[in-house]
Order: sequence, then C-alpha cells, then structure tokens
Amino acid sequence: MSLPTQPYRGARDFYPEDKRVQKYMFSVLRRVVESFGYQEYDAPILEPIDIYIAKTSEEIVNEQTYSFTDRGGRSVTIRPDMTPSVSRMVAGRRQELAYPLRWYSIPNLWRYERPQAGRLREHWQLNVDLFGVSDLPGDHEIILVADSILRTFGAKRDSYEIRINSRLLLNWLMLEYLRLEHSQAVSFMRLIDRSEKISAKEFSSLAESLLTPTQRETDTLQRLVALLKVKRLVELPLVTQQHPAVGELEKLINLLQNSGIANVTFDLSLARGLDYYTNIVFEVFDKHPDNNRSMFGGGRYDGLVAEFGVDPVPTVGFGMGDVTLSNFLKIHKLLPELAPETDAVVILIGDIYETVQKTLANFREEGLRMAVDTTQRRLDSRIKSAAKSGVPYVIFIGHDELTGRRFKLKDLATGNEQELSLERIVAKIAPRHRPNRGVV
Amino acid sequence: MSLPTQPYRGARDFYPEDKRVQKYMFSVLRRVVESFGYQEYDAPILEPIDIYIAKTSEEIVNEQTYSFTDRGGRSVTIRPDMTPSVSRMVAGRRQELAYPLRWYSIPNLWRYERPQAGRLREHWQLNVDLFGVSDLPGDHEIILVADSILRTFGAKRDSYEIRINSRLLLNWLMLEYLRLEHSQAVSFMRLIDRSEKISAKEFSSLAESLLTPTQRETDTLQRLVALLKVKRLVELPLVTQQHPAVGELEKLINLLQNSGIANVTFDLSLARGLDYYTNIVFEVFDKHPDNNRSMFGGGRYDGLVAEFGVDPVPTVGFGMGDVTLSNFLKIHKLLPELAPETDAVVILIGDIYETVQKTLANFREEGLRMAVDTTQRRLDSRIKSAAKSGVPYVIFIGHDELTGRRFKLKDLATGNEQELSLERIVAKIAPRHRPNRGVV
Repeated sequence: MSLPTQPYRGARDFYPEDKRVQKYMFSVLRRVVESFGYQEYDAPILEPIDIYIAKTSEEIVNEQTYSFTDRGGRSVTIRPDMTPSVSRMVAGRRQELAYPLRWYSIPNLWRYERPQAGRLREHWQLNVDLFGVSDLPGDHEIILVADSILRTFGAKRDSYEIRINSRLLLNWLMLEYLRLEHSQAVSFMRLIDRSEKISAKEFSSLAESLLTPTQRETDTLQRLVALLKVKRLVELPLVTQQHPAVGELEKLINLLQNSGIANVTFDLSLARGLDYYTNIVFEVFDKHPDNNRSMFGGGRYDGLVAEFGVDPVPTVGFGMGDVTLSNFLKIHKLLPELAPETDAVVILIGDIYETVQKTLANFREEGLRMAVDTTQRRLDSRIKSAAKSGVPYVIFIGHDELTGRRFKLKDLATGNEQELSLERIVAKIAPRHRPNRGVV
Repeated sequence: MSLPTQPYRGARDFYPEDKRVQKYMFSVLRRVVESFGYQEYDAPILEPIDIYIAKTSEEIVNEQTYSFTDRGGRSVTIRPDMTPSVSRMVAGRRQELAYPLRWYSIPNLWRYERPQAGRLREHWQLNVDLFGVSDLPGDHEIILVADSILRTFGAKRDSYEIRINSRLLLNWLMLEYLRLEHSQAVSFMRLIDRSEKISAKEFSSLAESLLTPTQRETDTLQRLVALLKVKRLVELPLVTQQHPAVGELEKLINLLQNSGIANVTFDLSLARGLDYYTNIVFEVFDKHPDNNRSMFGGGRYDGLVAEFGVDPVPTVGFGMGDVTLSNFLKIHKLLPELAPETDAVVILIGDIYETVQKTLANFREEGLRMAVDTTQRRLDSRIKSAAKSGVPYVIFIGHDELTGRRFKLKDLATGNEQELSLERIVAKIAPRHRPNRGVV
C-alpha cells in the first residue's frame, strides 16, 4: 500500500509558488520592524509544558496544545504561542540585556483545533515585543509598528480599524463598578470577548447564568449591557471618568491620531483571551465586507518575565499570524505578482556539458540565477518544461555560442529572441537590488 | 517556585547575536543554491510517522524520533529528516511539476539523541534536491553546489575534502564479490560506516560476528579488510574493474576535477547510514586537525518518490546541518563580524515625543533602522544602554534639532560627534545594498 501525499491535517505544504508569497510577506515584516530598531531572536519549537501552564489560557493548555512525554520522561509542548518563550529568554539574561529592548521573531506555532477559514493548526506568527518601557510611548510605538506593517503592504486607512481598550479599566469596571467577584469577572471577560460572535439574547442568558441570585435582583446585567454599548470614552458613566486608565486611553488615542492613524477607536468590549495582559490591549480589524474580523492584536503584559524568578520587566507587544495576514492581503488585492527565484533556464545544445562549465560559472559569478537543463530531450519539450516551471527566460548554449561568446536569450512571455553577450544578459535579467526604502 | 530559564535540552535559544549568525549563514546558502536555479519549498514540521517507517533507518525511527499520538489519535512525528517530506510533495504533484525540478529548503529537524559536539537534538538543515535527472550531470551538479557553498563562505580547497562512493558498487561487492546474504550486507554497510570511529581490532571482531561459520573458514573477512584499504579506483580487484559503477565513478571524479574541484577522492568505506540511497553517495570532510570529521553529505535516491504510489523519479540531493556548518566556519575563522539589524539609537532630549514623530517617520522612510530611547533616564545612562546593545551610532534629537533640521550623530566606537542633515545621516549609516554577486 502506498503512502498518502497530503500534509498533516490543518498544516500546509509550501510549494515554491506558495513559499514565495510567504518569503515576500516575511521580508516586508522584517523590513518594517527593523526600521523601528527591533532585532530578531528565536527559540526552540519544543518547550517544557510548565511555561504555558503559568499564564496561557487554560483552554489552550488543556485542549489545544500538542503536548507529549519525550523519551527521557519530560513533559514537552510544541509551542502554541511565543510569548512564554521570549519571556523565558529575557528572564535568563535579565541583567545583561540593554533596555529598552526591542525583539522580534517569526516562529512556527501549533494549536490543536478544528481547522477553519483564517485558523489552521499550524501557522507562523510575527511577534514584536518592547521590554523596559512602562509608559505610553511604549504602547504608542507598538501600535505604530502594527499600523506601519499594514501601510507598507499598501493597505488603505479605511480598509482596517485599530480598536483599543484597557484591561485596567475593564478590571475596575468589573470588580468595583459592577461589584463582581474575581472569578465572575474572568468569566465575564471571556464572554465579552465572544460578544460579537453570539446573539444579544444568547449573551444575556449566558451573562445571567454567571450572576448570583442577589446580583440578578439588582441592575448588574443592565449596567453591563449599557457599558458594552459605549462607543467613546466620554460616554462612560461619570463615576468612571476619574479612573486614570481613561486618561491614559485618551492620551494614547490622541497620540495615535496625531501620528496620522485616523482609524483608531475605543472598544470596551475588547478583552483579548490571553490571561497575561495587564493594561492597554488592542486589536486590528479587517473592514472588508467579506472578511470582517479581528486579524491580530496585542497589548501590555508587565508580569510575565517575573514568572521566571527575576525582577519584573514592563513589556508591550503583539503577534500577527501569517494566515490572517495573507487572507487580508488577498482580499484587498495587495499581493504583488512574484517572480520565481530563478532568472533563466539554460538549454544545452549538443554534447557540451563538460566544456560549458566555465561559462556557467561565469554567469553565476555575475549574479545570474539559472537552472541548467542537461536532459537529452527534444528542444521543444525542453522549452515547454522551462515555460511550465514559470522561469521567465531561456538561454541556449551550444558549441558556436561557447566560441563566439554570444548567447541566444528567449523571453518566454513574448517569444522574442536576442543574441547578447554574457554581460548584457546579466544586466538585463539578473535581480536588481534596491535599498530598503519605503517603510510608511 | 519560579520557572527555569534554560531552553529544552539539546536545543538552542537564539539571542539576537546568535540569530544574526544564522541569518548570515542562511543568506549565503540561499544565494548559492538559487544561483544554481533551486527554488525554496517547505512542509509542516509534523508528519505522519508512516513516511519515516518506509525508508529512514530503523535506528532513527525506533530510538530517535519525537513521535506521539495527537488529540485525534493520529501517530505523528516531529520530522527528523526532510527527504520523506519532499518526496511526498513531489509525488503529490508528480504530473503537474516541470522537470528537471530543483528544490531546496532549510527545515528545522529533531532527533532524540545524546547532545554532543556538532550534534544537537534540534538543528536546521539545508536540503538541496534535483529531481528528474538520472545521469551523471545530476550527481555532478549536486556536488558542485555543495562545493560552491563552502567556497562562497571563503573556505580554501585544502581545508576540506569531498569523498565519493557508489552504493551500486558497494552492493555488488557485498553480494557478488564477497557473497554475503542481503541482511549481512546491510549490517556490514552500517559497520563500514562506523569503521573510522572504532579500532581495527574492534572492527574485525564485530565483522567476524556477522559471518556464518562457513564464511569464517574462507577468506571473506581478509578480502573485506583488503577492500577497505583501497584508496583509488585502480586499486580495486581486477574482477571489479568491469563493473559499470567503476566507470561512472571515474567519469564523475574527472568531471569534478575539471570543474576545479581538486579535493575529491574515492572512498570505498563511505556507505552513509540512510537506507534510501541507491547509487552515488558523497560526504564532505573537514580537514582541520581539531575538527577532523564528516560534515555533511548526500547522494542518489531514485526510489523514494515512488513509495507514495506514483512512477519513480530519479533524485539526487544532499543535506547540510547548521551546527556542523557553523563549527566549520568558526574553526576556519570564516565568520565575518556581523552588525546588528539596527543602525542607530535615537535619544530624545526634552519633552518632544509627540512633535518628533514626523521626523522619525522621515528617517524610516529613507531606510534608516533606528530604536528610539524614550526613557527619562540620565543622558549618560542612555548612551551606556545604546553602547551595551551593540548598535554603532546614537542620534540626539531635542527641540533645537527639530527646528534646525540638523542632528548630532555620535559614533559609539570612536566617540566622534558630527552635526548632519537627515539625508547625510542616512547616506552615512543606513544599510547599502549590493547585488548578489560572488558565488564561486
């Protein structure tokens, strides 16, 4: 019985045309985050399971991790999230590192869940983190980086929206304003997180079930529903206006709008599932009618590094997945046509394999990327193979070309043929390198 | 109790200075293999265990894989080797793909073994494969690519050696010349593979134990030992000289030497552990006295794609691990000094965070990669942090600089300071991009 050729369910094979798209996306990500002074790091895809138990949500650890016992008896997990790993690494060199510390990575992450549009079991995720800045410029910069990425891909301001909230404010509203117990507040925040995905009626009944009989008799639920209708900071109940988190949110939104980010809004229903956020949280939403959804987000998590037994380090960051990003780029028609990594197929005519080596080496030394067709097939089937591979040009080399030092170059898109010197061919079709400009 | 900060045993954290080395190595690998017309692909790190059982060596599958059962009851493995995955992908599109097909990848691979110098549990491995070329030009090109990589890193010809053998020849010698049973031949090839690592006495006693009583009475062992002393094709027993594999090896060695590769030798003791090789095999050895070892290798495996139920595709390829490669580059002093991805730290003077945004955006648009220090610390401790981070320059921006459009630039290596315009700073310290020339 032969083996199946499909990849593991919920994961992807990247054939060269798919890999090119990923490489293009990653090169833009790297260019933008490096323009903000972030440096790349990496960590192993296997981690001890303990680092997720501490702070990742229970749902992920108990139901969605790829966890197993290794041959030495250690409980390990294929990372579902990079934040615990990067916190571990910063804690490991807490004293030696220079702050503010700007780090990024594009790790491969795995979660066992039902594959669906925009969510696979396996994805890559840009992680951008700023360590050692406890005040607003940190939050501002992180959101600016996220915005700059989408803008550098060519996204228009009206195609997405940045929604901001404060976990400090949300906590205060839950515990002090609505007078909920801590465990109730946690359940409510999860419910609020889902509020856009369920009906108002379902929301009410689920919310009702979380309340004590006493709370049900008071106006707790009505006050919660009223809160979730708030669209602007000034609409918050008067007693809330004095809370410092409101002033912070106001300043942050102003700072972002003054940086040209008009598409930023306050959203009190934004809680973000992960338990480790401590203050500002944000999410970026796609506004395309066919893809109206949260794409990615982040926020401040000042407590995570200290879980590894060192002094706390204020941290703000975000993660951006490659599946949601590529969906966004596709639906907004922002993916350019990408040429293959090969400039030309060289078709050898006659028995010249040994004598042509020097010339091939010359082409490569000059920067041409070329695949040599050494097969003895008919000329037209060799040209057909070259065209099928997506490579744009064919160079024919036979004995005469080797002695005359002029080579026939065929443009497979137009069918045009020219006889040119090695230098002219290189100048015409080898990759041109431009400086990394244009980060916006 | 706090969580430990070490990475999983046998795996590595890549702090930015380590990641830079890896990025440099990978960029050279990509540049060289793309100059030969190879295109990048990728596959998931998790694969069904079945694809390894078919052809990877039993030792790896039974003792060294990270295998487990997923939450849906599937037996999966974290890939120890990329060849089964790439064979699966080619088989999946056997008819649609254009041949010759040149593919490469730099996957992350895992094997559960005792970590030691040059071998970790986790590594990256460049995989280069040429599909659809059944004759010598295929083998020649693959070895040329491997050689070109080391040369492009700056390695000298006398610092490494390329050893070549033929599994066809080795099989014939085992089965026909020495008249061993198939299972004996397999055990002998594994033993031969280890022959450089054990003493001659140990080798003899292990070899003896593999023979039948009848074989022990004849001169089987002596003839085997004599064979392993052969250093050149002409020294092979006369009866062997007629075997077609000998002529092929001779042609290949000549072809390589005519391509300038003087450091190529025949090595009959070269078997390579993996069961899927069918013909030419090769290994590259480091000749440095302190690192005298096999670095990497490959060969022809014409049968693997057909395991997935399609017509066979002739294939030749090699894999090169990042741990052995970086050891080679370090011991031969071939790793250049690598600058961080950040050109400058911007130190803000006074309360200008909001007004400086436009200027910072201008710097980024022009291609400068810079980290902004927004902290309110003393100037000298901010300069100290910048120096500690390894970033080469500091730019000071206060209210006067914003209005005068000239900025103080400090070279942290020399201490020199200059007042320059934005354009001059960019021209002086932003990355310059050169064409990808110089593949040798």
